[in-house]
Amino acid sequence: MTSSNPNPSRPLAAARDKLLFTPGPLTTSLNVKQAMLHDAGSWHYEFNELVASIRQRLLSIAELSSEEGWEVILLQGSGTYGVEAVLQTCVPRNGKVAVLANGAYGERMGLVLSRAGIDHAILRTPEHQPVEPEALAALLREDKSISHVAMVHCETTTGILNPIEAVGRIARENGKVFIVDAMSSFGAVPIDFEECGIDFLISSPNKCLEGVPGFCFVFCRRQRLLACEGFARSLSLDLLDQLKAFERNGQFRYTPPTHALLGFDQALNEFEDEGGVAARGARYRANHQVLCSGLAKLGLRPYLDPAVQSFIITAFHFPADRQFSFNDFYRGLSERGFIIYPGKLTQVNTFRIGTIGRLFTADIRQLVDAVGATLQEMRKASAASELLHTD
Amino acid sequence: MTSSNPNPSRPLAAARDKLLFTPGPLTTSLNVKQAMLHDAGSWHYEFNELVASIRQRLLSIAELSSEEGWEVILLQGSGTYGVEAVLQTCVPRNGKVAVLANGAYGERMGLVLSRAGIDHAILRTPEHQPVEPEALAALLREDKSISHVAMVHCETTTGILNPIEAVGRIARENGKVFIVDAMSSFGAVPIDFEECGIDFLISSPNKCLEGVPGFCFVFCRRQRLLACEGFARSLSLDLLDQLKAFERNGQFRYTPPTHALLGFDQALNEFEDEGGVAARGARYRANHQVLCSGLAKLGLRPYLDPAVQSFIITAFHFPADRQFSFNDFYRGLSERGFIIYPGKLTQVNTFRIGTIGRLFTADIRQLVDAVGATLQEMRKASAASELLHTD
Repeated sequence: MTSSNPNPSRPLAAARDKLLFTPGPLTTSLNVKQAMLHDAGSWHYEFNELVASIRQRLLSIAELSSEEGWEVILLQGSGTYGVEAVLQTCVPRNGKVAVLANGAYGERMGLVLSRAGIDHAILRTPEHQPVEPEALAALLREDKSISHVAMVHCETTTGILNPIEAVGRIARENGKVFIVDAMSSFGAVPIDFEECGIDFLISSPNKCLEGVPGFCFVFCRRQRLLACEGFARSLSLDLLDQLKAFERNGQFRYTPPTHALLGFDQALNEFEDEGGVAARGARYRANHQVLCSGLAKLGLRPYLDPAVQSFIITAFHFPADRQFSFNDFYRGLSERGFIIYPGKLTQVNTFRIGTIGRLFTADIRQLVDAVGATLQEMRKASAASELLHTD
Repeated sequence: MTSSNPNPSRPLAAARDKLLFTPGPLTTSLNVKQAMLHDAGSWHYEFNELVASIRQRLLSIAELSSEEGWEVILLQGSGTYGVEAVLQTCVPRNGKVAVLANGAYGERMGLVLSRAGIDHAILRTPEHQPVEPEALAALLREDKSISHVAMVHCETTTGILNPIEAVGRIARENGKVFIVDAMSSFGAVPIDFEECGIDFLISSPNKCLEGVPGFCFVFCRRQRLLACEGFARSLSLDLLDQLKAFERNGQFRYTPPTHALLGFDQALNEFEDEGGVAARGARYRANHQVLCSGLAKLGLRPYLDPAVQSFIITAFHFPADRQFSFNDFYRGLSERGFIIYPGKLTQVNTFRIGTIGRLFTADIRQLVDAVGATLQEMRKASAASELLHTD
């Protein structure tokens, strides 16, 4: 929709969908969506072959192999379901989880654990600082009952990238199970599973792999998961049971989002065609750089120090204008065809812009232009209103 | 794909998708799938309006209203997630659930309860018999600790329709919370929520409403759910928390399957255009009748007494042929473009045929023809092989 619509009561049909500058659901290719124009039987052997192939391709992207003891399990639901499935399945009754948190998604792990009645300790860092490996080392010296360590790789609350390698080393040296939420980083930020000592890693088809939402997936060391027999407190979120079903007959235990899986298969084709993790990361990095330099020219400052900022999503301070209304800003951009994300910080006013999905630097330049035009429009309106009040 | 392909190593492109005679994922209309050719921002106000409208339309289909204290909550994941969400959210620590079961989905409720550590008793009836209200009455006289009663409306293990009204009356008279899994019946079999004394009812967009899989929905009495504060043992499956989010800002708590929701909106259009529950039920009933009379002519007998048989899905005995191979039968039908369902009974050999989804009597007639042709082909092959062995 454009703002030049002569008849606002009947909105013009959009020539294209609004572009989503969010950490997902994000803009996907038309081919991915067209792959969903089919109905597949979820018990049918042709569909089972597709599921097996998707699992195999995910392992390849992670540079893992089943021969070396790795598995990937697809699970219905959003990414949070995957995080909860790992925690509900792999922590024994007498286990205790140390969570390193510097944003909403780290805190959410704490919520999952509270709700499930699983003992845990949260190591908090301010939202603009990476989580601290040394704090974990100190806690592990102090509290011998901790069995698991969990953290978020890219915390989309701010876009900060956390040090999974340094934390993982400490977890491994202390013999703890290491769980990583790599929802928004997997597929674009290289992750060395062995080097990081990862035991469980959760991600989503609907982030850097540019599929549609509907399920999540969990990489794990097979032996670590098999050792969890009898721990699960939920049937739907029982990851071990889900693995057993894939191994028994190649099927999901319960109805999978068949269309989302068909779309994901195409998303993986496009991922491979683009050149894998390195190429995708490079495109997103370029998006991020064009965004930051463009918004800098408009006087908009990122919240984080560039040294800890990912290229996935970036939080920006509100402009210095006395009466900046995020709502007006958001609506102005939406009318121009661009959807951004609200901030999620408790202390500071920010908005967020994601640079992942089927977006290219040309799209980012259009967004930057739209931000400029929207801010100008808002300032004009504000000046007019002030003039009115001083009259 | 047809079997006349001259070059089997390069399969012919199918002129249309194979038709799914299953209880879901099922065959949906092309318009439903085309509605998914868009990306929507899950925090965006336009999408929130769609979600609100879907919830409103679901209440209308159920002939319920929020003014009379009813809610409907959408939840990511398969139908089983919805059943588990109700049980994990609404049974207090000292609660006990009576489950009436005559098939795999009743048994699954028992599994959910076991895994969640919730006390329960299962009242079993043989798979060909409806569950027994009188057995519940007797149990409630005996065991005063029972707080909740749960059952499946249409048990797709066999296709049997269970008496929710009679069971619900006993639950209500005894002041018990009544939970119904109406996954495969809602939208085509009329359900009088008040008459049945239903407190929680779970269903799926991917059954009689002919949407695509990816989420489920739960109808409930608002006061019943509000009384469950603090009971939930899972964050992802916390139904009360999910309701609160919809009420706070119109949003799902976690990433919803946006495309499945866009498709469902179109599915609801088609449901309303067709004429609602009565018209949809009539189409499915006609499908079922054409199926049964067609297969009877081929000598195939349904497993259930017609008096308790639903028109959703029908289990048939294997034909009397000495060496009937379900696998060959299934593959023969699949090659002809028809996907059926395996049996799920423990004692008797059956296969199942669903008659829901975007299927009409003309499709059923084609299926019946394909069953006839496949059986004939199998008998010829079997006779040839016997001839070979007697030679």
